[in-house]
Order: sequence, then C-alpha cells, then structure tokens
Amino acid sequence: MTEDTVASLAVLVGGRVIGDASRRIDGVADLRTAGPTQIGFMRDQKYRESAVATAAGCVITGEPLPGNVTQIVVADVGVAYAKVALHFHPALRALVHRVHPTATVHPEAELLAPVEIGPLAVVGRARVGTGSVIMSGVSIGDGCSIGSDCIVYPNAVIYPGVRLGDRVVIHGCVVIGSDGFGYAREDGRWHKVPQLGGVVIEDDVEIGAGCAIDRGAIGDTRIGAGTKIDNHCHVAHNCNIGRDVAMAAGAMIAGSTKLGDRVTLGGHVVVAGHIEICADARIGGSSLVFDSVGEPGDYMGWGLQEFRQFGRFRRALRELVDMQSDLAELKRRVGAPEPRGD
Amino acid sequence: MTEDTVASLAVLVGGRVIGDASRRIDGVADLRTAGPTQIGFMRDQKYRESAVATAAGCVITGEPLPGNVTQIVVADVGVAYAKVALHFHPALRALVHRVHPTATVHPEAELLAPVEIGPLAVVGRARVGTGSVIMSGVSIGDGCSIGSDCIVYPNAVIYPGVRLGDRVVIHGCVVIGSDGFGYAREDGRWHKVPQLGGVVIEDDVEIGAGCAIDRGAIGDTRIGAGTKIDNHCHVAHNCNIGRDVAMAAGAMIAGSTKLGDRVTLGGHVVVAGHIEICADARIGGSSLVFDSVGEPGDYMGWGLQEFRQFGRFRRALRELVDMQSDLAELKRRVGAPEPRGD
Amino acid sequence: MTEDTVASLAVLVGGRVIGDASRRIDGVADLRTAGPTQIGFMRDQKYRESAVATAAGCVITGEPLPGNVTQIVVADVGVAYAKVALHFHPALRALVHRVHPTATVHPEAELLAPVEIGPLAVVGRARVGTGSVIMSGVSIGDGCSIGSDCIVYPNAVIYPGVRLGDRVVIHGCVVIGSDGFGYAREDGRWHKVPQLGGVVIEDDVEIGAGCAIDRGAIGDTRIGAGTKIDNHCHVAHNCNIGRDVAMAAGAMIAGSTKLGDRVTLGGHVVVAGHIEICADARIGGSSLVFDSVGEPGDYMGWGLQEFRQFGRFRRALRELVDMQSDLAELKRRVGAPEPRGD
Repeated sequence: MTEDTVASLAVLVGGRVIGDASRRIDGVADLRTAGPTQIGFMRDQKYRESAVATAAGCVITGEPLPGNVTQIVVADVGVAYAKVALHFHPALRALVHRVHPTATVHPEAELLAPVEIGPLAVVGRARVGTGSVIMSGVSIGDGCSIGSDCIVYPNAVIYPGVRLGDRVVIHGCVVIGSDGFGYAREDGRWHKVPQLGGVVIEDDVEIGAGCAIDRGAIGDTRIGAGTKIDNHCHVAHNCNIGRDVAMAAGAMIAGSTKLGDRVTLGGHVVVAGHIEICADARIGGSSLVFDSVGEPGDYMGWGLQEFRQFGRFRRALRELVDMQSDLAELKRRVGAPEPRGD
Repeated sequence: MTEDTVASLAVLVGGRVIGDASRRIDGVADLRTAGPTQIGFMRDQKYRESAVATAAGCVITGEPLPGNVTQIVVADVGVAYAKVALHFHPALRALVHRVHPTATVHPEAELLAPVEIGPLAVVGRARVGTGSVIMSGVSIGDGCSIGSDCIVYPNAVIYPGVRLGDRVVIHGCVVIGSDGFGYAREDGRWHKVPQLGGVVIEDDVEIGAGCAIDRGAIGDTRIGAGTKIDNHCHVAHNCNIGRDVAMAAGAMIAGSTKLGDRVTLGGHVVVAGHIEICADARIGGSSLVFDSVGEPGDYMGWGLQEFRQFGRFRRALRELVDMQSDLAELKRRVGAPEPRGD
Repeated sequence: MTEDTVASLAVLVGGRVIGDASRRIDGVADLRTAGPTQIGFMRDQKYRESAVATAAGCVITGEPLPGNVTQIVVADVGVAYAKVALHFHPALRALVHRVHPTATVHPEAELLAPVEIGPLAVVGRARVGTGSVIMSGVSIGDGCSIGSDCIVYPNAVIYPGVRLGDRVVIHGCVVIGSDGFGYAREDGRWHKVPQLGGVVIEDDVEIGAGCAIDRGAIGDTRIGAGTKIDNHCHVAHNCNIGRDVAMAAGAMIAGSTKLGDRVTLGGHVVVAGHIEICADARIGGSSLVFDSVGEPGDYMGWGLQEFRQFGRFRRALRELVDMQSDLAELKRRVGAPEPRGD
C-alpha cells in the first residue's frame, strides 16, 4: 500500500537524489539480489562494485557513484538504512483490541484499547497502554504499568510494581523486577534483605533476550530513555542507567552503579558496584571496570585504561615472555648484586 | 496489624535502646524520608548527618548518635536491617489452598494444602509441600519434590526428578535439571551422553533470575542449604556446592567441581571443572579459577592469587609499559651480549 | 523389553568380549553400585580397583582387566559409554499424536502426526515434523518449521520464521530468533535497524538452557548440523556456525562471525564480531578472541595465543612482580642513564 518513490525516501533520510527521483520503491534488499523496485545500501567501500552493478531501483550511498544508477547521497548510510528499513518494516503495534481467550487478565487490570494480549499471558492488576502487544506466556505482575506501543515478547516475566514507558520492547525470557542480591551475613549464614524498591524503564528502551533487571533494594532501579540492552545483560539493584546508553551482550553491572547518558559498553563488560561512569564514556568489549570513570572517551582493559594506553599495554603483554628472557640475560651479565653497594 | 515498638524491635535485633522504647513502629524507610512511625538505619558514616537530623521514629545504628533521636545500638546494622525489613515484609507463603483453574496439575500430583498454584502453571506427577507458591507459567516435571514454603516465580522450569528442600526461592526463567553438557567425540562428531542424574536443592536456597542448574550425568548435582545464587549463574552437572555459599551474578562453575561451605564467589567468576574450593574461600569478582583452592582466605585473579598478591600483581601490570621501556634502556646501556661471557 | 547381552552390546560399541558373552544386561550403572545385570565403565585408571572388584555383569574398558570380570575391550570408553547409555535411555520422541487441550495451535499449523504438543504451548502457523515433542509453555511463531524428532523443552521461545532441522534439542527458556542488536546512531540517539533475517538450526543440534540465538539482520544466522551449545551461550545476528562445533557454557559470539566445522570453544569464551575461526581450532576456556584464527590447533588467551605459548605467558605473568623488582635492582646497579650517551 505504500506509495514510496526515490524522492519521498530522499526526504525521509535527508539525502540528495542523483538520477530518476520518480521511481517507485517498495522494499529494501541486498545490493546483489535487489530488483528494480527495491532500494540497496552501500555501507562500505567493499560493496562498491556491487553498488555500481546493482539492479536495484536505487542505491543509498555516502558518495556519488559512477554510472547510471539512481542514487540518494547521504551523510550516514547506516542511519539512512535504519530509517528506510523501519519505514518498510515498522514496529509491531496493536491496531485491534484483542485479548486471547486463554489469557488470564485480572478483572481490575486496565487495558487501554486497542491492546493485544496473547494466548496464555497473565496480566495482574496492572495498566497496559494503547497499542501495546503482550505476547504469549508473558507474566505481568500486580501494580505494573506498561506504556503505549510496547512489545513484550513471549515468556518474559515482569514482577509486580515495574513501570515501563512508551515504545519499550522486551524480548523473550527477560526478567524485570526480580529481587536484588541482598543478604546480610551473621555467624556464617545469610539473612535475606527484602528488596522493596521497583524498576523504572523509560521510553524507547529495548531489552534483549534473557536479560535480568533487578528491582531496587529500597529505591528504584532505573533504565533511562532510549537505552538499548543486548541479550543476557544483568543490571543489579539500584543501578541508575542513563539515556541512550548501549550495552552489548552479556554486560553486567553490579549494584548501585550509575551510568551517564550515551555510555556504551561492549560485549561482556563487567562493571563493579557503587561506581559512576560519566556520560559519553565508551568501554571496549570484555573490559572489567573496577573504578569510576570521570572523563568521556574510549576505554578498555582489565581495570580500565584509556584506549590507546590499553593498546600499548596489550602489545607489551604480548612481549612479556621475551621481556622475561631479556631480564634474565641482563641479570647474568650485570652480575649478582654486591651487598656493600657499587 | 503488627504492634511493634522500639522495644520489641530491639529484642528482635539484639540491640540496646537509647531514648523512647515505647514508640510504635510500622515500617522501614530511608532516613531522609522516614516519618515518626518508621525506623531508619545508619549503615555508613556518610549517612551520619541524615541520621542525626532524621524525622524517623527510631534509628538503628552501630554507635550511639548525639542528640535526641531514639535509637537502637547494634553490633551489625546490616544484619539488623535484614531482620527488621523481613519482619515488616515477610516472605510470601500460601495461606489458602488455591489451584488456578487454568493450571494443569497431574491427577496424581500430591499438593499438601495449603498450596498456591498460579495460572497456566504445569505440575506433573510431583509433590508440592505446604505453604509453597508456584507462580504462573512454571513447569514442574514428573517425579519432582518441592518442599514447604517454597516460592517459584513465573516461567521457571523444573525438569523431572529435581528435589527442592523447604523455603527454596526460584526466580523467573530459572532452569533446573537441564541436561549437563556431556558428549563423546568419534570421528569428529558428537555422541550425546544421556544425563541420568538429578538435582538436589537443599533448604533455604535462593536462585536468581535466568540461572541454569544442570542435572548430574549419573549422580546428582547438589546445592547445599542456605546457599544464595544471583542472576545468570551456571552450575554444571555433578557440581557439589556447599552450605551458605554465595555466588554473585554470572558466576559459572564447570562440571564436577566442589565448593566448600561458605565459599563466596564475586560476580562473573568462572571456576574450572573437576576442582575443589575449600570452605571459607572468598574469590573476588571476575576471577578465573583454574586450580583447586586448599586454604580459606581472600583470592582474586586470572589464575587465582592470594588477594594482596593480586593487588601487587595488578600494580605491576599497570607498570608494564614502563617496565618494557626501562628494559630496552638497560639493554642499550649494558650493550649486546658477548658470546665469550663476562 | 530390551533383550541385550554382553555380545550384542559388544557389537553396538565395536568391542571385543573377554568372558561370558551371553549374559543379559539391562542397564548402565556406576562400577561401585552395579549389579549382575548392569554394565559399568572404566574410563580412568583411578577406577581400576573398582573395576576389578565390581559386581557388574560386565565392564567396558580400554585395556583387558585381570581377574574373572566379564569385559568388553574398546578403543574409546567414553564413546562406548555414550552409545550404551543412549541405547538404554533413548532420546524422547512422540509415539502417539497428542495435542494437550490447553495448548493453543493455529488452525493452519501443520502437525505431522504423531507429534506431542504439551499443555499451554503455543504453536503459530508453523510446521512440526513427525516424532517431535513440544513441551509446556513453549512458543513457536508463525512461519517456523520444526523438523522430525525434535524436543523443545518448557518455556523455550522460537520467534517467527525460524527453521529447525531434525533431531534438534532445545532446552528450557532458550530464545531463538530474537532481534539482533542493530542500531544506528544519530545525534547521540539510537535508531533501531529492523532485523529482517531468520535463523536456521540444522540437524542434530542441541542448545542448552537459557541460550539466545539472534535472527539475522538481513540474511540468516546459521547453526551447522551436529553442533552442541551449552547453557547461557549467545550467538549474535548473522553468525555462521559450522558443523559439529561445541560451545561450552557462557560462550558468546558477536555478530557476523564465522566458526568452521568442529571448532570447540571452552566455557565463557568471547569471540569478537566479523572474524573467522577456521575448522578444527580449539579455544580454551575464558579466552577472548579478538582476531581471526587461520590454522587448526589449540589456542588460549586474552587476545588469543597458541596454547603452549599461552602457558609460557601465564608463567611469565606469575613472575611479573619479581620481574619488576629485578628490573628496579638492575636500574639501581647500572646507574642512571647519561644524556651524552655511553
């Protein structure tokens, strides 16, 4: 039903057309397989040949291409791709109000139609905003508030008292609001510390499959607006994650830690508890972060280092066995230390 | 309905009252927001000012505070907090026998009333002890035994033949009793080794969201009484975890490893298979444990080290690039080695 | 009902009988507890005494044992154990067509009888092959294809458009087909990149509890035939995993990476994106793999090294504090550098 043309897509992505702006476009495709009503993307010089030879109706590119290919020239092909692909494949939302007969919805739940509740989902005395899709097997506890246009994929578990903003996406088997890991030790045994806080997930957050976000011990755990969290991440109780943060797969953040806006964590980064990472710090994959980070920039390491320092460190580490031999040779040549000094 | 006073709470925590012991207390709160019927806690000197200025009806503290504030002085504020908070927020238990009509319970399942079985839960030919709460979407396999006063949160999966003691808490999307990772290789292909053992979870264990505890290959995997396991931990087949152990988030233990009583693992610790960590060893976060640990104490490292040694090691590691420069300078000054010796 | 004898089992495992080949055997057991109709296994010299003294009807061993014990001598006891145990404990498969009345099956789903669909499972407009068992709470999306003799354990989530081959085993709370972690950044905010590809899981793959396998961004993510994946592993979008690969618990592979056939990853290995690990490379546990691996062999390290090199490296690392002292002593003895040179 879309009536998109090269011209309309150029407006969407803020680009400049070279060639036939009137062509109809009805989808995205790989440059090598695209047909005349599809649009392809040259995101890297290594696809240049494919871009020049493509049968696509249009190519989005960062620089003008030679030949007759119709093209839209943009500043950032990745961003343009995201916008065009999302245009042709918009996010799922409930258009018709539909509660599956096998779902169990609390009589006092507040469903703001249209909402879609899938088979075998359980919704407690909670609020679900208009346009949201709650898929099969999801559990939403009492006192939860789910915003508008959210998507909760199958078998995710949202404990009581969790608040989700609008357009939040929760993937399969995510757990939000589980108890934080709080115990006090007495005579070698653990007393549980009841976890009395909640979780606040702000607008436009996406949380990948299998993540766990614990509720606060006494205040709330917070995930700021626009933040994206990959699979298998762990956010412990009372963390305060800023806006537009990105956490790649397996990142783990211990309790009460604060991440500033736009922080990025590579895959498998581990962040200690009770520290603060300032806005715009970027932490490379598999880093261990024991201490607070006070300056924006690129960091990496086991015990963090500024990124270029870490490069030098890793090169030195690679020379370690040679250093050890050199040192032994030097000791041999300089001779044993003499107690009365030199 | 509770009729607690400063005096009764002092008895609960074994503390000494300074001030008005007769005050009614009906809940815990943050020192900064607490009102006159709430009790606050000074767990750290940095909250001293808030404690002195609080409007709370009582403060629990490790040392007497100046001013007029009513206080309970205790040896360990953290333990006192746990006890008081748990007193006001006791663990959930089934008080009324209630099997949700959408649950699927095997006709030969043995439910010792009162038990609560949530919507869309599945209980096989298993036994569930009195007071236990099985929440929505949980799967309990045939031959399982669940003790008294257990809580199993939504969408947890308990494979057949798993035994849980009393007061065990299992969080959302935990999997217990999945097959251990056992294969034999022949001509480059893998033959599955059937996993014939079970899992025994003893009393008072708590297992965080998204954990997986594999069944034994031929005997059982065991988690000792009082052990607490944070989110995303992995315990492989035939591990034998002692009593009152604590494993922080993302800890992973390979097969057949034994952890003694009261071992603590920091977050993201990885323990190799077929080794033994003695009672009362404490392993710092993100450590890699390749070898057995024979002495109680504090350890940390990649390939473990005694904790202070690891501190020296990390400091040396931070100097590595400088060491490399120094070594180059020394080599230059001492000169090339002479084959006939010195 | 099995009528197995020592002779028939010897044929199964390709071994040579010493002793009474006509004995009836009806199961496997530990050497120390086995009775006269059970078969035990001596997989290690440390069990030699138990093997000689066993009451088992037969022992499978890699070398002839002294005494009167009936034995089957084989080249690889581990492989023989797998075959015999699997013979007595064959993989579950549906023998009777049975769709639980509480399951929700799309009217256009294609179930090739016999198939077993457990309670509260959800099957979209998908195809499920003969012999497959879909357990409780599983979600299978529209457009999925499940082969024959598959087992999907409770609460696993299979997103739309995922294809499983035959004899695939998916454990509890696994998520297959979740969106890859794809975003484009503009002015500090993230635009989602729709994930338009699928996931192909080939024959005989097994995937452990809590794993997540993301769908491709535009093409498919692929797991090759015979590959075995332990709990909590993460395979990002567009990975291409070869045949007969093994990934131990917690291994994580970033996007678009390619693993050759028979690669093995130890526990907790992290592999960077857009690299290639050649066939028959074996990567030790907890390694960080930043670069492609071009030669088969054994590797380990943080930034990978050939395995024996890594051993030397780790020994040098352990000496680092001593190296630092030695270096300081040498500097002291050689004296401060003189600016005009030597």
